[in-house]
Amino acid sequence: MNYDIPFNKPFLTGKEVHYISDAVQTGKISGNGKYTKKCQDFFKNTYGFGKCMLTTSCTDALEMAAILINIQPGDEVIMPSYTFVSTANAFVLRGAKIVFIDSQNNHPGMDADLIEDAITGKTKAIVPVHYAGVACNMDKIMALANAYNLFVVEDAAQAIDSYYTFPDGTKKALGTIGHLATFSFHETKNIISGEGGMLVVNDPQFMDRAEIIWEKGTNRSSFFRGEVDKYGWVDVGSSFLPSEIISAFLWAQLENLETIQTKRIQIWQTYYEGLKDWAAQNNISMPHIPTYATNNGHMFYLVFKNTTKRAKAIEKLKSHGILSVFHYLSLHESPFYKNKHDGRQLPLTNHYSNCLLRLPMYYELSVADTNKIIKLLNEVQL
Amino acid sequence: MNYDIPFNKPFLTGKEVHYISDAVQTGKISGNGKYTKKCQDFFKNTYGFGKCMLTTSCTDALEMAAILINIQPGDEVIMPSYTFVSTANAFVLRGAKIVFIDSQNNHPGMDADLIEDAITGKTKAIVPVHYAGVACNMDKIMALANAYNLFVVEDAAQAIDSYYTFPDGTKKALGTIGHLATFSFHETKNIISGEGGMLVVNDPQFMDRAEIIWEKGTNRSSFFRGEVDKYGWVDVGSSFLPSEIISAFLWAQLENLETIQTKRIQIWQTYYEGLKDWAAQNNISMPHIPTYATNNGHMFYLVFKNTTKRAKAIEKLKSHGILSVFHYLSLHESPFYKNKHDGRQLPLTNHYSNCLLRLPMYYELSVADTNKIIKLLNEVQL
Repeated sequence: MNYDIPFNKPFLTGKEVHYISDAVQTGKISGNGKYTKKCQDFFKNTYGFGKCMLTTSCTDALEMAAILINIQPGDEVIMPSYTFVSTANAFVLRGAKIVFIDSQNNHPGMDADLIEDAITGKTKAIVPVHYAGVACNMDKIMALANAYNLFVVEDAAQAIDSYYTFPDGTKKALGTIGHLATFSFHETKNIISGEGGMLVVNDPQFMDRAEIIWEKGTNRSSFFRGEVDKYGWVDVGSSFLPSEIISAFLWAQLENLETIQTKRIQIWQTYYEGLKDWAAQNNISMPHIPTYATNNGHMFYLVFKNTTKRAKAIEKLKSHGILSVFHYLSLHESPFYKNKHDGRQLPLTNHYSNCLLRLPMYYELSVADTNKIIKLLNEVQL
Repeated sequence: MNYDIPFNKPFLTGKEVHYISDAVQTGKISGNGKYTKKCQDFFKNTYGFGKCMLTTSCTDALEMAAILINIQPGDEVIMPSYTFVSTANAFVLRGAKIVFIDSQNNHPGMDADLIEDAITGKTKAIVPVHYAGVACNMDKIMALANAYNLFVVEDAAQAIDSYYTFPDGTKKALGTIGHLATFSFHETKNIISGEGGMLVVNDPQFMDRAEIIWEKGTNRSSFFRGEVDKYGWVDVGSSFLPSEIISAFLWAQLENLETIQTKRIQIWQTYYEGLKDWAAQNNISMPHIPTYATNNGHMFYLVFKNTTKRAKAIEKLKSHGILSVFHYLSLHESPFYKNKHDGRQLPLTNHYSNCLLRLPMYYELSVADTNKIIKLLNEVQL
């Protein structure tokens, strides 16, 4: 069916198609051209990221990370079960065994207190997912990584323009903390290019090889910098770099980052204020932002007491032409992985899978529509 | 330096940015939307391909192929050494050993007569590359595949709108013959979307799984057809599908396929007529189209007697602001593979690597510019 208020809606900020036409005029729409460089420089300068490399998706950025940290068959990677399949698949494709960890009691993000118990001699990496753009406990995670000599790959798919404050007061953008980090520009994200992503390489040991893997296993980038006199096949790799058509679109979005972020946070706040009393009365959990984290307005969600109550809210909104959605069937119970899972119980993962609901959230969501959703939910008695 | 006549130049046929705006208006710019389906249907209906699936690149289509035929570490894959790195890398990423075969005496494509000698008990697939859009000897290759129970993955990156005629007179589009086939829409190809590609699945046994692997290892496509009541993680996979931004761009190109093809073949013919006498006088080989193949106007190349003579031609053109290029450092002699290569001598591969030259070839190349290039080359005495 078509919804009057969809869950998500892509948007133009103004110059997207202009920049695409410009890329064609300029004579380059394959990857690693003018707009790719503009986007990468913007991210580096705005957030203090290490080397930034646009990719065709966050999935592909995760696959680059798995190749860079040299995942071998049998290596173990620790991550939450409550996440998108790509977090896991990227490492499974290199032969890794995934060790799934439960969510936090007050947040769907992984519980950092459960990580140490999951570390073995085969553990190679921890992949914290900053769910809803809200930071994981990075101080604890980085300390464990240092103690056990593990790599940290931040899955920051939803976490652009969000921050973490260390206990000593240092505030850092998400994506600057792990050895590697990945972002998504899928159409449901804050900043979009339809499909799209980025790998951030913070650990200098990976920077040269990242460039080679990105360019299909060739030293083409060195060649164009004049460092080698011809370029050829030097490593494994793939075509991880997006078309300039995608980068040009993304650049127009980045020029409007502040406006987009302001708008999304306003929507988020409107939801929060308009729903908090009703939520308290009906035993519904509202999004929790720990003191060490920030809110980037990526997602507004509610956690109901059970699936039946969630279904009531979905139905109420649906009957008024509004689409609300839930997501993440627990990966440890998926058809693909349930027989490979180590048997660890992950009750909170299942709880979020059964009870979390996402409300419509997009740049062009009007105040009137937001208020309509709030009014309808307030009428739901659970 | 900037060239007056570049080697390649991307082009708009008219409606590219209009369709991109339409995709945004329609509310979907992530993958597998309206324009993806329009492109896929076009290819299927125009050429008689099996299941068509757009991908972010031909590299990614090859990676899907490697996953589908279930390449395991140690499996052997036979392919030409004179090809782009992605032909090999896609299989190397799954652990394959590549067995490289030499080119033909009168064409850079692989010599089908050399394949049988390279087949062992570990051989899993043959990957013929239709160089310059000119068919490999598919009758011979398919007969070997049948006899030895091997899969054939046609690397048709350059081969859109080109055909092969079997000895019995049956004429089939390239990409319809192998179990699987891959195409590229990179900006240097006939039909472009900057970066982009397509997997064609002709063998029905792979169709369902292809859809799952394409959608990140989930059964999302079945879910949206109502075949399952929820979707989840059922297999390995990646984000192989391109943004609708890319598909919308590609669709505008496909609407103009005939015009584009007519223009490219005209340029090709102009080169051929204008250079044939000079080539004969100077011992330069012109492109050879076997009787079983067609010419899709993808590439115009010359093969000089040696590297020095080629360098003279490049220099002459360069001094008049014209960029001509060569390509494919032999993969069997690459830094990455030379120690893994089985030692087979591939003299023709090296010959093409050292002596082949590609002339400017793009939709907007004018008759005047084509004639200028011809005139300048005719002045080169070798």
